[in-house]
Amino acid sequence: MNENEFLYSDRILKTNRSFIREILKVTSHPEIISFAGGQPDPALFPLEELRSATDSAFQKYGSQMLQYGISEGYTPLREKIFERYYKNIKYPGLSSENILITTGSQQALDLIGKIFINPGDPILMERPGYLGAIQAFSLYEPFLIGVPLEDDGLDLVALENTLSKTNPKFLYSNPTFQNPTGKTLSLQKRERIAEILGKHNCILIEDNPYGEIRFESEAFPSIQSLYPERTISLGTFSKTLSPGFRVGWICAPKEIQSKFLIAKQASDLHSNIFSQIVLSEYLDRFDLDLQIDKIRNSYKFKKERMEESLNRYMIDLADWVSPKGGMFFWLTLKNEMNSMKLFEAAIANNVAFVPGIPFYTEKPETNTMRINFSHSSIETIELGIQRIGESILKLSTISV
Amino acid sequence: MNENEFLYSDRILKTNRSFIREILKVTSHPEIISFAGGQPDPALFPLEELRSATDSAFQKYGSQMLQYGISEGYTPLREKIFERYYKNIKYPGLSSENILITTGSQQALDLIGKIFINPGDPILMERPGYLGAIQAFSLYEPFLIGVPLEDDGLDLVALENTLSKTNPKFLYSNPTFQNPTGKTLSLQKRERIAEILGKHNCILIEDNPYGEIRFESEAFPSIQSLYPERTISLGTFSKTLSPGFRVGWICAPKEIQSKFLIAKQASDLHSNIFSQIVLSEYLDRFDLDLQIDKIRNSYKFKKERMEESLNRYMIDLADWVSPKGGMFFWLTLKNEMNSMKLFEAAIANNVAFVPGIPFYTEKPETNTMRINFSHSSIETIELGIQRIGESILKLSTISV
Repeated sequence: MNENEFLYSDRILKTNRSFIREILKVTSHPEIISFAGGQPDPALFPLEELRSATDSAFQKYGSQMLQYGISEGYTPLREKIFERYYKNIKYPGLSSENILITTGSQQALDLIGKIFINPGDPILMERPGYLGAIQAFSLYEPFLIGVPLEDDGLDLVALENTLSKTNPKFLYSNPTFQNPTGKTLSLQKRERIAEILGKHNCILIEDNPYGEIRFESEAFPSIQSLYPERTISLGTFSKTLSPGFRVGWICAPKEIQSKFLIAKQASDLHSNIFSQIVLSEYLDRFDLDLQIDKIRNSYKFKKERMEESLNRYMIDLADWVSPKGGMFFWLTLKNEMNSMKLFEAAIANNVAFVPGIPFYTEKPETNTMRINFSHSSIETIELGIQRIGESILKLSTISV
Repeated sequence: MNENEFLYSDRILKTNRSFIREILKVTSHPEIISFAGGQPDPALFPLEELRSATDSAFQKYGSQMLQYGISEGYTPLREKIFERYYKNIKYPGLSSENILITTGSQQALDLIGKIFINPGDPILMERPGYLGAIQAFSLYEPFLIGVPLEDDGLDLVALENTLSKTNPKFLYSNPTFQNPTGKTLSLQKRERIAEILGKHNCILIEDNPYGEIRFESEAFPSIQSLYPERTISLGTFSKTLSPGFRVGWICAPKEIQSKFLIAKQASDLHSNIFSQIVLSEYLDRFDLDLQIDKIRNSYKFKKERMEESLNRYMIDLADWVSPKGGMFFWLTLKNEMNSMKLFEAAIANNVAFVPGIPFYTEKPETNTMRINFSHSSIETIELGIQRIGESILKLSTISV
């Protein structure tokens, strides 16, 4: 059938298939060690607890779990999310009514596109930035502008410069253990960014999927806590409990939330209520903090093993900033090594990662790459990094 | 906070809150008999079977139920949907790969908007038509054109006339036990519509949530079976098993499906995999046809009781076409009685329905209304219809 036979929308014709999807096809071979995905370690899912919570939810709630629900989401779950994540935010009237349950955080990004973006609207995001956000926003045809990242998060001089030249609909940021770089916005910069955004009346989308997966005791305040009047906060249970449940949320000022609600209803009426009730029951009966401690300890250990291997096999081949949480290392290859070429060589050597290019909205830095440490076993981490190092050396030899 | 303080997209500013949502708030009082919603009867949910399927799914699939899945949906579920609903469609290469799992049929409507609609594009749909489709499409700012319904479905003379004057992106139709009218496209018209659409190369969206809930033995072939090359078929488990699971699907020609996949990934990555695996396990272990028989018998009985009451209390006050399946009666009030005014009087008399206005994209027929029979108990059906009749008589007296 001919591609041109059907009359598609402009937005879909401008959108490519996901680069990472294509990569994941190649990396599904069992002999390949893959650092490409961004999946949690399934061995850490609280399988027995969720099974028990499902069982008791069936007993307590019965057919309510199977019927249509309200678009806002399951009320007791919204209350628990508010209590856990937002009750200390100082903003008049903020309550569980400001929480909207979404089908994963990805849907929150789509709803943001729906309610804010007209074609051509300038949107600011980190450079490099989260690929899923680039994809979701792109369908609404904005003008995406990347603001560079420094080791301690967004370059605020560049941000202020951009804000004085454009009037963006919002800044999308993932300030804590960022995907893809693992970088975290410093406390000082959090205070400063709230001032800068306030001066320009700019809305902030603060996406925080990894905030609880931190390897050090100190947690920074959210930017939302410093700038509640114009922050839309996104959260998810995908990294702490289960991505398969597809339960994320938006916390936004009430007036914005009313627009999200219209968009939510048009998009899927409401998210799966069965899983919302199971999660709510889990939170009633089990301690999420214990679950998070388990994840922190495991990922911290894996991250340290990966860094040891990086120091052993790649210290002269790449630079990186040691992440203080999350799931990723971001490598900058030395000698302008192209990570796309390296990807091919690495696949031939049975190891995979994600080249940096798809994380840039324009002018990609071709010597960058993302490697994940949450999903691999300790045994494969060293071997995989060794293989990447070998592939770099092999490519360098060919180039010389 | 001032509405104009934030810079929203044009699309969301043009979209109103759902009329039905507002109605449902009023009708949630326990003393009100509500025929307003479109919910299945929760007493018919196969609660014990789904509980047992959940339990065995946990045992068999474990952490796979909780991990990220592929955007297309759970492969064994797609295979079962194909086997049950599409294996007899004569179209080269059609297979389970043509099935994409969506977060309810509502998401399918959103994805259709995403991949087809540019602002101003003409779109055809039934007049009156499904409110959820009007909402989902409207966010993509099309020019919605209503094609009138006759007692045996779409007015094909009007359809052909419109097709010869416009070049619509697609016709959206709900040909079997339509929401809101309960009308069904006749066999003869199904053959004819395939010819007409084919002549104009027009894509058909055939939305079929109610097809299996039929009260007579004869089932008409889908329009898709007569026009597979340009039909996008939508289905759902919401009316047969559980709306709370939010599992619907799209079956489309492969080339179109590839565009849906891009849009799906940007919209929510994938639908809840936990519920997809539970449904798949249910279909393996239980007989969906027995479940559907139960629903058919119950709704047929309720429909007959409602029609008896209509004949008793409203025979001189309204006209209707007896539905042969589905969940709704559509009433046309005599003497140009305004159903919005009637709604207020009926609420005062503790009974609710949906006035016809929101089902029209333009020039609504203000003397129409939708009443649901699936969700009410037998005991309340007669009393509720009696109350509506009383409210009409009371209003007529006031008018005189």
